[in-house]
Amino acid sequence: MSWDRPIRKELDLVEESIRKSVCSDQNLLTDICMHVIGAGGKRIRPGLALLAYKAVGGQEAPNIVGIAAAFELIHSATLIHDDINDDGEIRRGKIAAYRKFGVQKALIAGDFLFVRSFRLGGCWNQKVVEIISDACTATAESEILQNAWEFDPETPLHQYLKIIEGKTAMPMWAAARVGAYLGGGSEEQIEAMGRYGLDLGMAFQIIDDMLDINGEVKDLGKSRGIDFMDGKPTLPLMVAMRDPVVGPELARMFVNEEKSRAEVDAALQMVLRTCALEESLEHARDFGRKALSHLSLLDESECKQSMRELVVAVLDRRK
Amino acid sequence: MSWDRPIRKELDLVEESIRKSVCSDQNLLTDICMHVIGAGGKRIRPGLALLAYKAVGGQEAPNIVGIAAAFELIHSATLIHDDINDDGEIRRGKIAAYRKFGVQKALIAGDFLFVRSFRLGGCWNQKVVEIISDACTATAESEILQNAWEFDPETPLHQYLKIIEGKTAMPMWAAARVGAYLGGGSEEQIEAMGRYGLDLGMAFQIIDDMLDINGEVKDLGKSRGIDFMDGKPTLPLMVAMRDPVVGPELARMFVNEEKSRAEVDAALQMVLRTCALEESLEHARDFGRKALSHLSLLDESECKQSMRELVVAVLDRRK
Repeated sequence: MSWDRPIRKELDLVEESIRKSVCSDQNLLTDICMHVIGAGGKRIRPGLALLAYKAVGGQEAPNIVGIAAAFELIHSATLIHDDINDDGEIRRGKIAAYRKFGVQKALIAGDFLFVRSFRLGGCWNQKVVEIISDACTATAESEILQNAWEFDPETPLHQYLKIIEGKTAMPMWAAARVGAYLGGGSEEQIEAMGRYGLDLGMAFQIIDDMLDINGEVKDLGKSRGIDFMDGKPTLPLMVAMRDPVVGPELARMFVNEEKSRAEVDAALQMVLRTCALEESLEHARDFGRKALSHLSLLDESECKQSMRELVVAVLDRRK
Repeated sequence: MSWDRPIRKELDLVEESIRKSVCSDQNLLTDICMHVIGAGGKRIRPGLALLAYKAVGGQEAPNIVGIAAAFELIHSATLIHDDINDDGEIRRGKIAAYRKFGVQKALIAGDFLFVRSFRLGGCWNQKVVEIISDACTATAESEILQNAWEFDPETPLHQYLKIIEGKTAMPMWAAARVGAYLGGGSEEQIEAMGRYGLDLGMAFQIIDDMLDINGEVKDLGKSRGIDFMDGKPTLPLMVAMRDPVVGPELARMFVNEEKSRAEVDAALQMVLRTCALEESLEHARDFGRKALSHLSLLDESECKQSMRELVVAVLDRRK
């Protein structure tokens, strides 16, 4: 991946800022945070903030390293709490934090990460605080919404889109928007960068949902079919469940709250016989194209080129 | 209670701000938050911010209603997450949120409350953000520390003090300190208000820990002996477990992770035969006296009088 080429120095500083932020007298707290944060992750959110900052002409990128790091801390907090909620077993190829350290401690560590991100994100002005808290509010709301549609094979497309917007696209919207705002972008540029982040996030989540069906276990760092197992209506599953041939049987399996591993594997094979992945990819590509279109307001630059490459990289994850 | 006399109008605005803050498209999220926030509570943290603000000469108390509300939102978030962690059954006389709505949704609602408080608290300057995030960091750290000493009858006094400082006193320190800071207090006044909140919080928690032994179930809104049951080393329990007569037997019962209700009741009776409550009350009164001493820097005012009355009210909760 090369999309982070123009911001590698700053991304190193982001790592440093993250490590400093999760440092605590209570070593266990630091250990839990680093178990998740240190396990990898592409740092797309901090990267978006830095790219958007530079792309609109911001000259002092090291100044926004703290807030760029805040987006990763928020993301990690969400991952830790999500795994508790979803009984997730594996995250980024490692055992989920709550499985290793217990629910209590993982829950506290998530709260701790939110607080640390508040410290980094709150030292800017009200505008920045509003963008970040709007995104985090949307994330919490989307989790409730996702919960409401669990095990429902007839989840409408617009509800799915609202869910992934809240949980994945809004944080990326916020990162890109804050970056452009702090970089001194014009109102139009700030708006465009936000939309770029939003559409990129939509594409990202759709691809993620596809990978749960046809990804390589070694790349995923977890097993396939978790969404089907958990009754999460993702786009490819929703499309497949409307397939005239296998749809009804798939839907019947989907609503069963106690699926065996063999049933899940059989269901994934059925999904692969439909046009679900092709159709989902078309949706993801649409969002990718939309993301690219928002870049037209920017002057040509290395960062603009990187933002193009990031779209390609996100869409290419399907392999 | 009359300590809130000079700030009743503002406390009404705080209620309004809280209600507005937890309003969400996802009604369920609002319901969970209001289940906890609407169940009562004395609003001591917002009250402290408002009293300290006015006591140092702040003239526009309605301006700080939002941040005063933020302290209550943070407190409520902590209560929701704490109940998940402690298997708490009853909170403020009502069934714990996670029991009514499920762990998943309660966890998300807690996160949502953190985010909403960030929005309210983050629109001030870096100083304010630092005070609040230092307090929240201390809270998270103290929960880890409390966890580490669970079921240990030999918990040292200084560790107990560190735990209650983080979980109860630091949030009150932050509320009073932020109030005094925004009210335009001098450096000394800001420092003194913070210390007042801190010592008040220490007294508050010690009394709380005593009430778990001899409180009226109808006032507590929950059953007695939860700390003993859960192996939480509180001051009165620690004192009682060092009693030459009943101490060893109490300690033996304390370390048992599976206690029956009858055992807990028997243990409380044994605690009552020691000087544990008297000694704990002496500690609480010491903190109360220290809290009062920090008021000497303030000119006489209705708010200063209220802050004295608040100390008395906190110590009087023992009945």
